[in-house]
Amino acid sequence: MEIAELQAVLRRTYVERDARRGRDATFRWMTEEVGELARAIRTGDRENLVHEFGDVLAWLTSLANLTDVDLEEAAARYASGCPRCGASPCVCEFRP
Amino acid sequence: MEIAELQAVLRRTYVERDARRGRDATFRWMTEEVGELARAIRTGDRENLVHEFGDVLAWLTSLANLTDVDLEEAAARYASGCPRCGASPCVCEFRP
Repeated sequence: MEIAELQAVLRRTYVERDARRGRDATFRWMTEEVGELARAIRTGDRENLVHEFGDVLAWLTSLANLTDVDLEEAAARYASGCPRCGASPCVCEFRP
Repeated sequence: MEIAELQAVLRRTYVERDARRGRDATFRWMTEEVGELARAIRTGDRENLVHEFGDVLAWLTSLANLTDVDLEEAAARYASGCPRCGASPCVCEFRP
């Protein structure tokens, strides 16, 4: 699936509700899902893990829709390798 | 860009460093970027906002690489509308 396709289907599905809830409440939901992702990592349930990655990605995309950010444009920075050093694999100084 | 392409380029670029850092430290980095996204939303700097969406998406994808999650599979749940009610637009009870 193209990133733009995902953004478009999520816009059709949720943008009206997201706008009603508002940007900051939508950010709160995304953060709630990040917490659920943390729990899925901790428990090790594979099915739940895939589910929660999907939820975080969906809420991030909903937030992008609300703030008029094109996620393809956002992702493009990473399309050819590391945006900092330009290489793939990255050769930046390691950061723990 | 296909979600799978983004995941592949990020794997080539970062998975060795991500594995060296470890899963939980990579989760911490993703959370740091979520905080930077919050700041970008607050300050309203458009260029920075696009940048931070890209960073959160990249770190989420790096975490998926480390935990062997296929982000296309994760996203597929949303491909045809709301995974809960099946509709697009969603007709679930509104959650604030």
